[in-house]
Amino acid sequence: SGSIFASSISSAAERVRAILQQEEVGDRKCPLLFIQLNELLSTPAGLEWKEMARWIKFEEKVEDGGERWSMPHIPALPLHSLFELRTCLQKGTVLLDLDAHSVKEIIDKALCRQPDDWLLPPELRDRLAALLLLQPRHQATKSPLLALADLGLSPCREPSSQKHLSRSRCHPTRTFLSMSFQLKNRFKKKLPPGAEVANVMVGEVDFLKKPFTVFVRLREVAALGSLTEVAFPSRFLFILLGPHAKVKAYHEIGRAMATLLTDELFQRVALQAKNQEDIIAGIDVFLDELTVLPPGKWDASARIPPPSCLPSPHKRISMHLRERKPHCNGSTAAAEDRPGLGHHHFSEELERTGRLFGGLVRDIRRKAPWYRSDFSDALHIQCLSAVLYIYLATVTNAITFGGMLGDATANMQGVLESFLGTAFAGSIFCLFSGQPLTILSSTGPVLVFERLLFSFSEDYSLDYLEFRLWIGLWVAFFGLVLVATEASHLVQYFTRFTEEGFCALISLIFIYDSLKKMLSLAEAFPINWHYRTDDVTLYSCSCNLSSPGNATDTPLPSPTGLHEVRTLLFGGDAGLPTLAPPAWLSRAQCLSRGGQLLGTSCHYVPDVTLLSFLLFGGTFLCCTAFKHFKSSRYFPTGLRKLVSDFSIILAILIFCAIDVALGLETPKLLVPSELKPTNPSRGWIVLPFGANPWWVCLAAAVPAVLVTILIFMDQQITAVILNRKEYKLKKGAGFHLDLLCVSLLMIVTSVTGLPWYVSATVISLAHMDSLRKESTTSAPGEQPEFLGIREQRLTGLAVFILTGVSVFMAPILKYIPMPVLYGVFLHMGVVALNSIQFTDRVRLFLMPAKHQPDLLYLRHVPLRRVHLFTAIQVLCLAVLWVLKSTVAAIIFPVMLLALVGIRKGLECIFSLHDLSWLDSIMPEPGRKEAEGKLPRKHEEEESDTEEVGD
Amino acid sequence: SGSIFASSISSAAERVRAILQQEEVGDRKCPLLFIQLNELLSTPAGLEWKEMARWIKFEEKVEDGGERWSMPHIPALPLHSLFELRTCLQKGTVLLDLDAHSVKEIIDKALCRQPDDWLLPPELRDRLAALLLLQPRHQATKSPLLALADLGLSPCREPSSQKHLSRSRCHPTRTFLSMSFQLKNRFKKKLPPGAEVANVMVGEVDFLKKPFTVFVRLREVAALGSLTEVAFPSRFLFILLGPHAKVKAYHEIGRAMATLLTDELFQRVALQAKNQEDIIAGIDVFLDELTVLPPGKWDASARIPPPSCLPSPHKRISMHLRERKPHCNGSTAAAEDRPGLGHHHFSEELERTGRLFGGLVRDIRRKAPWYRSDFSDALHIQCLSAVLYIYLATVTNAITFGGMLGDATANMQGVLESFLGTAFAGSIFCLFSGQPLTILSSTGPVLVFERLLFSFSEDYSLDYLEFRLWIGLWVAFFGLVLVATEASHLVQYFTRFTEEGFCALISLIFIYDSLKKMLSLAEAFPINWHYRTDDVTLYSCSCNLSSPGNATDTPLPSPTGLHEVRTLLFGGDAGLPTLAPPAWLSRAQCLSRGGQLLGTSCHYVPDVTLLSFLLFGGTFLCCTAFKHFKSSRYFPTGLRKLVSDFSIILAILIFCAIDVALGLETPKLLVPSELKPTNPSRGWIVLPFGANPWWVCLAAAVPAVLVTILIFMDQQITAVILNRKEYKLKKGAGFHLDLLCVSLLMIVTSVTGLPWYVSATVISLAHMDSLRKESTTSAPGEQPEFLGIREQRLTGLAVFILTGVSVFMAPILKYIPMPVLYGVFLHMGVVALNSIQFTDRVRLFLMPAKHQPDLLYLRHVPLRRVHLFTAIQVLCLAVLWVLKSTVAAIIFPVMLLALVGIRKGLECIFSLHDLSWLDSIMPEPGRKEAEGKLPRKHEEEESDTEEVGD
Repeated sequence: SGSIFASSISSAAERVRAILQQEEVGDRKCPLLFIQLNELLSTPAGLEWKEMARWIKFEEKVEDGGERWSMPHIPALPLHSLFELRTCLQKGTVLLDLDAHSVKEIIDKALCRQPDDWLLPPELRDRLAALLLLQPRHQATKSPLLALADLGLSPCREPSSQKHLSRSRCHPTRTFLSMSFQLKNRFKKKLPPGAEVANVMVGEVDFLKKPFTVFVRLREVAALGSLTEVAFPSRFLFILLGPHAKVKAYHEIGRAMATLLTDELFQRVALQAKNQEDIIAGIDVFLDELTVLPPGKWDASARIPPPSCLPSPHKRISMHLRERKPHCNGSTAAAEDRPGLGHHHFSEELERTGRLFGGLVRDIRRKAPWYRSDFSDALHIQCLSAVLYIYLATVTNAITFGGMLGDATANMQGVLESFLGTAFAGSIFCLFSGQPLTILSSTGPVLVFERLLFSFSEDYSLDYLEFRLWIGLWVAFFGLVLVATEASHLVQYFTRFTEEGFCALISLIFIYDSLKKMLSLAEAFPINWHYRTDDVTLYSCSCNLSSPGNATDTPLPSPTGLHEVRTLLFGGDAGLPTLAPPAWLSRAQCLSRGGQLLGTSCHYVPDVTLLSFLLFGGTFLCCTAFKHFKSSRYFPTGLRKLVSDFSIILAILIFCAIDVALGLETPKLLVPSELKPTNPSRGWIVLPFGANPWWVCLAAAVPAVLVTILIFMDQQITAVILNRKEYKLKKGAGFHLDLLCVSLLMIVTSVTGLPWYVSATVISLAHMDSLRKESTTSAPGEQPEFLGIREQRLTGLAVFILTGVSVFMAPILKYIPMPVLYGVFLHMGVVALNSIQFTDRVRLFLMPAKHQPDLLYLRHVPLRRVHLFTAIQVLCLAVLWVLKSTVAAIIFPVMLLALVGIRKGLECIFSLHDLSWLDSIMPEPGRKEAEGKLPRKHEEEESDTEEVGD
Repeated sequence: SGSIFASSISSAAERVRAILQQEEVGDRKCPLLFIQLNELLSTPAGLEWKEMARWIKFEEKVEDGGERWSMPHIPALPLHSLFELRTCLQKGTVLLDLDAHSVKEIIDKALCRQPDDWLLPPELRDRLAALLLLQPRHQATKSPLLALADLGLSPCREPSSQKHLSRSRCHPTRTFLSMSFQLKNRFKKKLPPGAEVANVMVGEVDFLKKPFTVFVRLREVAALGSLTEVAFPSRFLFILLGPHAKVKAYHEIGRAMATLLTDELFQRVALQAKNQEDIIAGIDVFLDELTVLPPGKWDASARIPPPSCLPSPHKRISMHLRERKPHCNGSTAAAEDRPGLGHHHFSEELERTGRLFGGLVRDIRRKAPWYRSDFSDALHIQCLSAVLYIYLATVTNAITFGGMLGDATANMQGVLESFLGTAFAGSIFCLFSGQPLTILSSTGPVLVFERLLFSFSEDYSLDYLEFRLWIGLWVAFFGLVLVATEASHLVQYFTRFTEEGFCALISLIFIYDSLKKMLSLAEAFPINWHYRTDDVTLYSCSCNLSSPGNATDTPLPSPTGLHEVRTLLFGGDAGLPTLAPPAWLSRAQCLSRGGQLLGTSCHYVPDVTLLSFLLFGGTFLCCTAFKHFKSSRYFPTGLRKLVSDFSIILAILIFCAIDVALGLETPKLLVPSELKPTNPSRGWIVLPFGANPWWVCLAAAVPAVLVTILIFMDQQITAVILNRKEYKLKKGAGFHLDLLCVSLLMIVTSVTGLPWYVSATVISLAHMDSLRKESTTSAPGEQPEFLGIREQRLTGLAVFILTGVSVFMAPILKYIPMPVLYGVFLHMGVVALNSIQFTDRVRLFLMPAKHQPDLLYLRHVPLRRVHLFTAIQVLCLAVLWVLKSTVAAIIFPVMLLALVGIRKGLECIFSLHDLSWLDSIMPEPGRKEAEGKLPRKHEEEESDTEEVGD
């Protein structure tokens, strides 16, 4: 029989191709089919139709308990039942383009057109017709009220259009309930407006001797009353009633029919079939493409969850249209999806025009039509969460960098400058840039440069701000030259290798800085680790106001501390200070009066550090837990999504509340509240001449080259990361326009002595991540599709306006403890680090080959090569890290260029095949789902829990 | 063709049944088959055989990169290739019981016996033979050295036995390498000694016009040299060489053949087949049982991980032996595995004999033969870990309960009594009990009773210990009566409902207590939440030694504290105390001299509480993380298992080290170091008469009834939980013997005034959990099988001896901070709580129906019923909790009895079907994998990472 099958398949394929070719049905979009399987069950009240399963893309079964739908799963069938279905369709009646508008009409016509050898006495025919007209009982996610009303009501025949046939048992209320139920069925939301319904009805009937099989395709779709749980018009109808057979045999055939109808290819064939043979050919082609699981290796009761990514039906159909291709199997299928090399995907935006400012003009032309929607698209609750989240991150960043800048430049640029600069530069950028999702910030490399510049100025007695002004002007000039010459097209050489190196570096800096800050807290609030409860009487701290002249009397503070106590108590015998009793003075008062603090407990601050660590760890864990809450099983999807979207804010609020409740003096976010330069020796405008010799303005061009490279690399790598194809951005990028904005802002910030700004990778990624759009109405079991990012200018603008206003919000913001913000920083760094493939590959080092996840690139690239590639990246990262931390930091920008060079060098070591797997930016539907087509278990779990919204 | 297939299948099934019936081959165990697929590939060096995949139970593929094995996965095949294989076998040569001992012999004979229409010119025949004798290149987990040696050596023909045929290119070293490689192949460890090999060889050969197919079964297994990667003898050989065909067509047919050979049923058929038709019938039966996945819904490149639990092949085979059953499908298959009601599984141990002490005698008879092995079985490294873990838990428990008992009984029973009692009772129980895995401990209910008893004695001026002695004697007497009357057979009424209620209660008490203890630490070491850094000078604490006579001079301590400081400094003007300067006295010295502590910082202890919380949280998280480390992907299995086994110890050590490094005065584990009763007013022996009126000894019988119920319930419920069938205990239980031991120990502990002991659920479960045995040599992809528990008496004995010795180990144990131990307690409580189905069901309350996991009972019991059942349990638990916490605690034991009654009452509310799902103790292979046959995603992941040991 195998050979017969094998020979019949090629003719079937021919036939299917002919069907698909006619009227190019292969290209036409089929309406979505909702398929419902009704089965005839014998209940105490008699025979009754009951919904047993339903399909949109995947199968949902009514569980044995009868009160719940199963998880959506891949309809795994016994091969046997498919063959039986084929036989049924071959021997049964196939009515194509039947002209009928009600169930009754269909059944009457179907009974008439039975073949001659299937003769049934008239009374049995009537009985059969009556049976088929019985009203089915639907399984549904009923509201409790309806379920209650439903309880105890016996099933009843369909009376809406066939009143003359219905028997007495029907209550009008029941009909009403059934119809209103159909109307209220929340499942309908899942179906798009044009959807159609297919009904599969199977059952065992004792008075039949032979099976009665009909496959009906209506000429016009018709609403068939409450035959299905959702009120959509039907086109296909399959009925199989037969004599007593093996347990569940009809059920399985019905499932096979339904599964067949879910197949996109068969749907097209069934829509266009001219005769019974066409249908059979459709089945044969379906059979030929089946994947089979051997018995004994697979538990038939296990349900396979839907994969996270499915092969496109169009590819399959067009394959059938063209000609019969070799069988699709693992490796070839995968090979077809091989990602292209990284630089393929900036097709249009980075093409050189060859004209001066050609790229810039194009950027403006591309972005201008979107400008209006850049504001209207922001009207979504998600944007509010994004604004709050990014606002807090930006403010924290501004404070952190402001503090560090103030440190590095003797407060020439301090926290207030940082706030104003961020607010100003950010708002301008958001309003006029090419990629308004970018968040500007001071970045580490710039900070390093400022530090070097300031000490250079000190050493050579130059005026720092004036020198910096000239550098800024030169940088802006060079920037404009780069824009004019369309230098941004060079970013196409930034591949995954470069990007990941940079992104990993920045993420590590985030993580490192947050931990370093926490440890510096331990220094700021030292703990007395040698505290002994028993010695409580020996710890104290007092103010010693004895004048310097008396200093000889006072022994020097000794570390043991006991000495001081004695001194205070007995040394004071000579005469207590007359101004005020020392014990009445607080620390600040004492120090302000020139006193000295003496005692064992002066240098220690109890509890603050440890509480800070608790808050830090708690915030980090809380952020992470809330972020993952989306993929938990608890609570409805809406709530979970809300918690996940607002995870950072919630975590911050919770830990602020805890901190306030405990009342300890933890270090808080301190926002400057007065609008004046941090260093009183400077004004708001830096004058270009006066302080330095005239040649300094020319000499400034030399450091400006370095800064230009730095700014260009820093800005453009971030821009490349943000404009990845996988984010499905619709409004396009604007590399030239972005660079222009940054250059022009450079002028303003240099003149006003504010910090310089470029795109900040981690915060911008967090910004985009908080603006992800996902489809909500997907078929059960289907992954919610990543639709893109809410591209608009309003969230960014709001963030920066809020940052500016923050100068006046000090009374509120002062409740936020710094450790909580460091916890958020740590979270951001970890998330950003986890989002790159590089991290996955580093993890592979620690995994024995056997336990490595089934990643696509591991299937195609030898492990040794993967490790080598990763090792080179780690090495580059280490060099960058060391450079960043030493004086050599000044050549850091050059190193970034070197990274691009190294990447080019890799092409000598690795084959193009390997590189295409490792170093490409695949069109991923949202970074992590990334490694793509394989149902990675964790993602699967997420899919399970996310797909259904009701 | 479908109908032909359908008709052929029944005759095929007949034939297969006949084959299985002959010589009862169906019952015989087939040797394990290792199947290797070699494919002919064209390389620059010419044609070459290369290993492409291998099978034991599941498929492992050589990845495209060519250097790694894929994850083991279910071999999903295109249906097409199976039909092509069938055709091949139908048209090709099938040589059954071929008499050959080398590859050459086989090939020569195979070429001779080709059908007449398959004539090949002699030179092509020789070419074909030479091709088939080419030495294959194996894929393997090579050692780097071998891989290096392998590199660059071109493939070469097998020269060992066919030197006369081999051509010149062969180096002897190559042969040596190949053979030694086979010997060294670590994969061999996976195969049991009796394993056989099957070779599948496929390839495309341009000089052939028609395919050349041979299926060979050797009469005697023969070692075929290096044809396969492991050196086991071969029996089956399948060769398919053919002309140019579709891409991968031969590969897929080879895979189909290999998959067919992995099938237990087909293996038996192939072993006994008399002719070609038998083989074809075997294929047809295999085809008939296939599960199919529809195209388009399934990505062919995705690999299905092996399920955690497979249907038994024996069931399938015996089904074929009996007669053709209806098709196996989800619900019926599942229904077959329906668990029985709980009380089926104590078959033998709890049968009533009807004789006095009949059960006890039987217990002793059952356990006596195992007594020797109870010690020899303990020789395993795992036991060491278990001893350390349980020792620490026991010591902590002894201290906790000792402390609480001391509190409740005015130190009549204190920590030292608790230590000695635990050590004594535990060792005796471990030596003589029926279930030596049980760990004895004081339990919450007993503690509550002691507290009530003590206050009753106080109120009525009775001597507590004497009263208690008589109660103990009565309890022991009642216990003996219960043993004599075989009352333990009543435990068969303890179903999952009772057990889970009790287990949940105890777990919650563990969790609650650890948290309460932590909060009490915050009271013991209060934090000054209002501490202000600026006020550091105002905080101090001094000793005021002014005599009571002077008390009028000293103002009363005021809460502001500032007052005291002033008092100290100026009030002291009148004359400083002459004995010693007050500042020199430590807290203890001051108090011992009758001084008063005055000052704002006297009542506060900085940092200790917060550090305790950090240690507590850290220990808990660390325990949990280490425990889960086993199922991570990192590091080799051995290391992961080690870390997981020693997770508690490691966590304790790490946090002790942190604590020591920080040096703060956190509360430590304080073990009594002197052997004398805690309360000096009592001795080591309680005299039965003297202190109380004579009638007290009779009246003691009344409370003794309550204690008896308590002890009986507490002891036996734990025993039931520990003796669950799912733990696969081999040495049987001893309910009567256990009760006897507990009763006799009651006498001793009452006489010596030590606490009373019964089985402790949580610690005993932890004990068993740390002694789990799992199979190590399982086929790739197969779950490691849970083999049982290391049942022995030595670990328990060691734990209790160590507990006794601990009295002398105070210097070491004092480094363990209490918060660390509380963290461990929390971990134990959480683990125990998570291990019961009840917790899963409570979680269901929070999950929308759509997102609930695919649990077996949810498939069969309506959700409403599940919720109702859970709600009743929660209610019972709440009542128990409230009772436990109030004075009504005395009737707590009666409530446990009521629990059993409520369970009986449930039978009125729930159908037997529902109860059998919800209230049964299923034979689970280790509690959690439990919900059983369904591949729960999380478990799946674990399986992935655990199955392979090399």
